[in-house]
Amino acid sequence: MLQIEPRLTLVDLTHLIAPQDLWAARFHLMNAVPYFPQGTVHLAVVDPGVGTARRSIALAFAQGWLVGPDNGIFSGVLDRFPPQRAVALTNRGYWRVQDPSTTFHGRDIFAPAAAHLAQGVDLENLGEKIPLETLVRISLPAYHRHENQIVGCVQHIDRFGNLITNIPSTALPSPDQPWWVELKSDINRVTIPSALAYGAVPQGQLLALVGSHGWVEIAVNGGNAQAMLNVSRGSTWVLSIIFDD
Amino acid sequence: MLQIEPRLTLVDLTHLIAPQDLWAARFHLMNAVPYFPQGTVHLAVVDPGVGTARRSIALAFAQGWLVGPDNGIFSGVLDRFPPQRAVALTNRGYWRVQDPSTTFHGRDIFAPAAAHLAQGVDLENLGEKIPLETLVRISLPAYHRHENQIVGCVQHIDRFGNLITNIPSTALPSPDQPWWVELKSDINRVTIPSALAYGAVPQGQLLALVGSHGWVEIAVNGGNAQAMLNVSRGSTWVLSIIFDD
Amino acid sequence: MLQIEPRLTLVDLTHLIAPQDLWAARFHLMNAVPYFPQGTVHLAVVDPGVGTARRSIALAFAQGWLVGPDNGIFSGVLDRFPPQRAVALTNRGYWRVQDPSTTFHGRDIFAPAAAHLAQGVDLENLGEKIPLETLVRISLPAYHRHENQIVGCVQHIDRFGNLITNIPSTALPSPDQPWWVELKSDINRVTIPSALAYGAVPQGQLLALVGSHGWVEIAVNGGNAQAMLNVSRGSTWVLSIIFDD
Repeated sequence: MLQIEPRLTLVDLTHLIAPQDLWAARFHLMNAVPYFPQGTVHLAVVDPGVGTARRSIALAFAQGWLVGPDNGIFSGVLDRFPPQRAVALTNRGYWRVQDPSTTFHGRDIFAPAAAHLAQGVDLENLGEKIPLETLVRISLPAYHRHENQIVGCVQHIDRFGNLITNIPSTALPSPDQPWWVELKSDINRVTIPSALAYGAVPQGQLLALVGSHGWVEIAVNGGNAQAMLNVSRGSTWVLSIIFDD
Repeated sequence: MLQIEPRLTLVDLTHLIAPQDLWAARFHLMNAVPYFPQGTVHLAVVDPGVGTARRSIALAFAQGWLVGPDNGIFSGVLDRFPPQRAVALTNRGYWRVQDPSTTFHGRDIFAPAAAHLAQGVDLENLGEKIPLETLVRISLPAYHRHENQIVGCVQHIDRFGNLITNIPSTALPSPDQPWWVELKSDINRVTIPSALAYGAVPQGQLLALVGSHGWVEIAVNGGNAQAMLNVSRGSTWVLSIIFDD
Repeated sequence: MLQIEPRLTLVDLTHLIAPQDLWAARFHLMNAVPYFPQGTVHLAVVDPGVGTARRSIALAFAQGWLVGPDNGIFSGVLDRFPPQRAVALTNRGYWRVQDPSTTFHGRDIFAPAAAHLAQGVDLENLGEKIPLETLVRISLPAYHRHENQIVGCVQHIDRFGNLITNIPSTALPSPDQPWWVELKSDINRVTIPSALAYGAVPQGQLLALVGSHGWVEIAVNGGNAQAMLNVSRGSTWVLSIIFDD
């Protein structure tokens, strides 16, 4: 990219997504993109389908541009910011080489496209327009409310072992209404009180709180909730927020 | 930060501090800060007390500025460079949002303060002045000299498995006086010769030397001293430097 | 480096080389260097011999400069781009301090040299010229062709668990001639079909393909070949590419 545009400001969001973990990439992009400057070009490469028929794409949205594989990686961003225009990266004039690697489009197709966008090249120059409704989208099961419960799931586990649910803070009852979380498996039930910050409960104790990206999360003050509860993403535990109605 | 000041030069010191490990953060900051350009703003976030009453602070010192939680994270830096002026980050006009997350002041309070300082905003604009003697400090047990011994402890273990003690090279006898390290547990005693460089002893052999930040460290040439000795930070082994008096 | 030249564009290639793993450093440099802009200064520090008699060097080559220990770390780059001029970094005027650490020449000798080169200082100013044929080189056993087989080895295993051989795509038969890989140990034989991309075989299946840097590699679609085959770099498995002659 610096070969194309030496004045770029490069920011690495993360290189620690587990191989092929589209869901983690979706989560990090969704949460990080809003904090970048207006006009940023976001390049993302978690690309298990590289070299197959999956399209290479670039999109315009309210905050800037997205460049990567058309495999759902941008779904979280696009749930918040609808896509405005999209192209398939079919214009070989903007590829690094005429015969790109079948295993690394990040280097040969996406990165040059991103650098050219940052340089001011029009999105439409990079390839054929594609209908927005044909973009591949992936999505979580929705949380649902049932009487005085909200039933959801764990959508991400961060490096602190915090369990981040798919329930946004906006789904919670009003601030003065108490709530707590219940996790149920076939043989077990754990009730977890809500609090405002990790440090609001004693060291080593479980709590539920609204995390930094606005999702209800389950944490342990000074500890690791994943290790303590042995819950993984997509596990069969039933997760409910319960409140006094 | 780039939203506030797009011309920033960002340098990531490390993202590999273990969760909540204030001591490792203190160690890395203490050792890295002197090598940055004069006027650098250092932003550090290892923040187990986020959302509680612990203060958010910014400090001026001889080499630039420090921004982060008031939890002792800057103690090592401040042992070398006394703080000159300090404020609590109470001026909401310099926060990212009026209602910051209770779990991520790094994003909502510290990062904007750091970007504003880099832009030239006066420290005093960011909030109320606080007395320097009220800053939270953490410190290691001091090493002590007793006859022909210096007794210390392991203050850090780096990713090579080198055991870095709290004994500075300045505490050592004169260059021509031989010295060695003794590690003693209830059931074990290991004597480790000193040398000038890792490669000065045979492959796989223990040595004690002055490491790159000026502390006596215990290493294995081409190997991992932590794994070989099974010593951890804060273990009950007694570590002594012995020299011929 | 920013103390010397504040306008530097810094790009971190990787901080995840295992301690002392010169072969991995050689591999990453060899593959990454060609993609950087003309005139880039490449600084590399995997340096088990630091503090011994091994030389500190800087080199000019067609694409820019290389700075680091003279221990073979640049061998892969130099196999592709012959060195043009080389110096030992003996001019103390370009060191950070007059008495550098015996354990961290990266900070005290290499980094200042790299920053000065980036600033426009002449290579020859940094120290005495050294004959190019005295540069330390490390190299892999060569692959060899024998009738309808090419016998090679695993030169690198990447973080996806792909086994990257020392056989370049240019050694393969013509595109329309079928080929496959055979891995043989004393007790086992695995035959692996070739394909054009990971996604060209079913999920979880082994394949051999030309990887992004032009080497034949063994992979599992959506999985980890190293874990599946339990092969390590330098293992005694015999790796052959076989084709219909």
